[in-house]
Amino acid sequence: MDYQKILNQIRPKKSEEKKIHSLYNHLIEIINETALKNNINAQAVLVGSVAKGTWISGKADIDIFIKFTTDTSGDELKEKGLFLGKECIKIMDGKSELRYASHPYVTGIINGYNVDFVPCYDIKNIKEMKSAVDRTIAHTDYVIKTLKPEQADEVLLLKSFMKSIGTYGSEFKVGGFAGYLCELLIINYDTFLKVLRNASDEWKPGYQIDLSEYGTASSYNEPLVVVDPVDKNRNVAAALTLQKMSEFVIASRNFLNKESPSYFIQKELDVDLKDIIEEFKRRSTKSILLSFKAPHIPADALYPQIKKTEKSMVHFVERNGFKTFNSDSWTDEKNKILILLEFETWQLPLIKKHHGPPIWSFDHEEKFKEKYHEKAFLEEDRWVAEVEREHINAVNLLETTLSPDKIGLIKFGKHIKGNLLDEYELYDLIEFLDSQDINKDQLEFLFLYLHKNWKLCR
Amino acid sequence: MDYQKILNQIRPKKSEEKKIHSLYNHLIEIINETALKNNINAQAVLVGSVAKGTWISGKADIDIFIKFTTDTSGDELKEKGLFLGKECIKIMDGKSELRYASHPYVTGIINGYNVDFVPCYDIKNIKEMKSAVDRTIAHTDYVIKTLKPEQADEVLLLKSFMKSIGTYGSEFKVGGFAGYLCELLIINYDTFLKVLRNASDEWKPGYQIDLSEYGTASSYNEPLVVVDPVDKNRNVAAALTLQKMSEFVIASRNFLNKESPSYFIQKELDVDLKDIIEEFKRRSTKSILLSFKAPHIPADALYPQIKKTEKSMVHFVERNGFKTFNSDSWTDEKNKILILLEFETWQLPLIKKHHGPPIWSFDHEEKFKEKYHEKAFLEEDRWVAEVEREHINAVNLLETTLSPDKIGLIKFGKHIKGNLLDEYELYDLIEFLDSQDINKDQLEFLFLYLHKNWKLCR
Repeated sequence: MDYQKILNQIRPKKSEEKKIHSLYNHLIEIINETALKNNINAQAVLVGSVAKGTWISGKADIDIFIKFTTDTSGDELKEKGLFLGKECIKIMDGKSELRYASHPYVTGIINGYNVDFVPCYDIKNIKEMKSAVDRTIAHTDYVIKTLKPEQADEVLLLKSFMKSIGTYGSEFKVGGFAGYLCELLIINYDTFLKVLRNASDEWKPGYQIDLSEYGTASSYNEPLVVVDPVDKNRNVAAALTLQKMSEFVIASRNFLNKESPSYFIQKELDVDLKDIIEEFKRRSTKSILLSFKAPHIPADALYPQIKKTEKSMVHFVERNGFKTFNSDSWTDEKNKILILLEFETWQLPLIKKHHGPPIWSFDHEEKFKEKYHEKAFLEEDRWVAEVEREHINAVNLLETTLSPDKIGLIKFGKHIKGNLLDEYELYDLIEFLDSQDINKDQLEFLFLYLHKNWKLCR
Repeated sequence: MDYQKILNQIRPKKSEEKKIHSLYNHLIEIINETALKNNINAQAVLVGSVAKGTWISGKADIDIFIKFTTDTSGDELKEKGLFLGKECIKIMDGKSELRYASHPYVTGIINGYNVDFVPCYDIKNIKEMKSAVDRTIAHTDYVIKTLKPEQADEVLLLKSFMKSIGTYGSEFKVGGFAGYLCELLIINYDTFLKVLRNASDEWKPGYQIDLSEYGTASSYNEPLVVVDPVDKNRNVAAALTLQKMSEFVIASRNFLNKESPSYFIQKELDVDLKDIIEEFKRRSTKSILLSFKAPHIPADALYPQIKKTEKSMVHFVERNGFKTFNSDSWTDEKNKILILLEFETWQLPLIKKHHGPPIWSFDHEEKFKEKYHEKAFLEEDRWVAEVEREHINAVNLLETTLSPDKIGLIKFGKHIKGNLLDEYELYDLIEFLDSQDINKDQLEFLFLYLHKNWKLCR
């Protein structure tokens, strides 16, 4: 396979490099001059993939951190840091927006680039760290210092591969590999191919990488442990799910088995609504779609709440005797949330068995008999009662439960509950697909639900 | 409660006693004379409840054992023993029938009484025992020697109670308390009421009674352990199931809570076909009835084979993804067997999940992927495939399986398999009840299936 050809597509051109270098240097200059002018003791510094030279052509985000001395108060850091960011965006004719991750920061689009301005502390030692962002400068320094020049290309290949197969990104939406984790894997294994070979042959849940030989790897129980070279008390792969780790392993095996340049570009999805409908009909399961408005919270807060809601709905219907085949959820992160439940059993008989205490437990058996008297009988030495179900249909059960007085039975993400109670739609999936407008994103969500390994092979 | 009134009904009258005494004495005389005349070294002896004076009025079976010396060969014992029995029945103008339990014996109806003639060895010590019947004479001797005269009435009350609530009899059909076990319980606890009180308050699975203080009780793990006073290596309650033990405990509690003479007579069943149909409809489960001819084998061989078949059918349909609510079976012991399966889930979607190996197991995952390729996907680190079911309907599954080439998938009792393959009917229960002739026994079977604790309370 011609890796140079791939690299020619994903490696930034000299002209692109030049343009971005002059832009971020200019931005840093503006921040530092504005600080001086306003008597603020702060200094701007470039971090992230642009600083490390590991960004993919056309996809550069500029991350500028604004360092304050560690004796600055949190409020002052926030106030002055955000002021400097906003001023810089204003001077550059950009549009600024305030955001929150673990920390508030300001973001803007300048000359077509996304630029983040993040206030942080200028720490000399990891022990002084006050928030996760304080570590980012150290990460950047470590990679600049450790990654060999020829390894930058290997990082680009690994990141492109990860993006293509759907395992790139440590945000909750993905639960995959962060950019920094990709860089550490290249530093550890040297090349793209060696990362894939090791993942394919050697990785197992609990696999450990400890570049700085801190010896702290065994204190983590995540599926993959990569001790942070700048902080022995952090697992860089903490956000990686077993699912995404496994997907990367399988995609690696697939690639090593049959290399193809298509593993470095987004696989084209060609989804046909009719095919999706036909496939759901063929399965002859029952699928329902719960649709409601998304709350305005950051994506990294939103996804876990949706997942929690989805899982709790599954538990709830299964606790009531129904059986799900699978479930999934989707959001555009701004307006809409969809939760999909596919049922194997959605209709049940009126009666069910209610298992009671053993007859040798006097107190309990007394209560049980009082409650169920002639409906109670013995199965060996246990009391059992045949009682009537409140709901013999899963959709009916959910409709009844999604109301203010019953909703406590399901555990919702806290920002989701209100929106759901305000207004929701509960559709039969096939009826929904037959009658409702469905956008391309939602259709892709359903396609990938039906073809779960689609991204992992070519 | 007036126990004397009950005893007046269940205790044999003097006239009945006289009649039976003169009959069995006469039969013993015939056997002994016939033996003498034919040069057979054997001696007849009365055993069982008549010998012990613990039989319920009107329900006497006469058990005559024909003892041979221990140096007699098995063949000779069988040949000569059965000859003597048959001769005696012939002389008395009865009709003889050969039967097998653990041992062959001959049975006949003489003057309206069932009389069993059982050849056995005249053992002096339990160690000489060659078959279970050799122990029976010792049991009779023990009870005659140990049971106090006034305790005979207590045995009668206990046996009547057991019959009424459905826990009397150690045969496989019942799995309850043998007559000898009832006698030992009275010997141990003294009175009927004390047996019930102890069962109610003290019994638990593993409860031990060891009248002769052999100290061997802990070597048994049946629900109730009653060491045989004439054989320390036998648990008299070995045949008692946890189900029947529990039923006796619950009926005891019910009786002690509210005594009633109705606990000593058969509770009248008044079954209405329409009610049965209505109740099965109300449940909205799906019940099917498998009907086929009974093989000609002793009842104690037949019932375990039917149970085995029933349980195996339940396992089979559940292994195929369906869910049963309950099951039961019935036979008239001569012509017909019915197996009832009541389903909670009898219809399933076309697709099912087939769980494969973890991705870390190279050999297995290779085979799995080869077999399922694009149908295989990952659930965390395990392979899963979505495959089509062969049968989405439980009745259809059973119909296909009850054929010569598929029947190996279900484990049948060995005498049942052939009969079932010869001819069977598989009915929807409600259609069966609507259209077929159903006899009183079968209707009672269905009634008791729906009202499992019906016999335990008044």
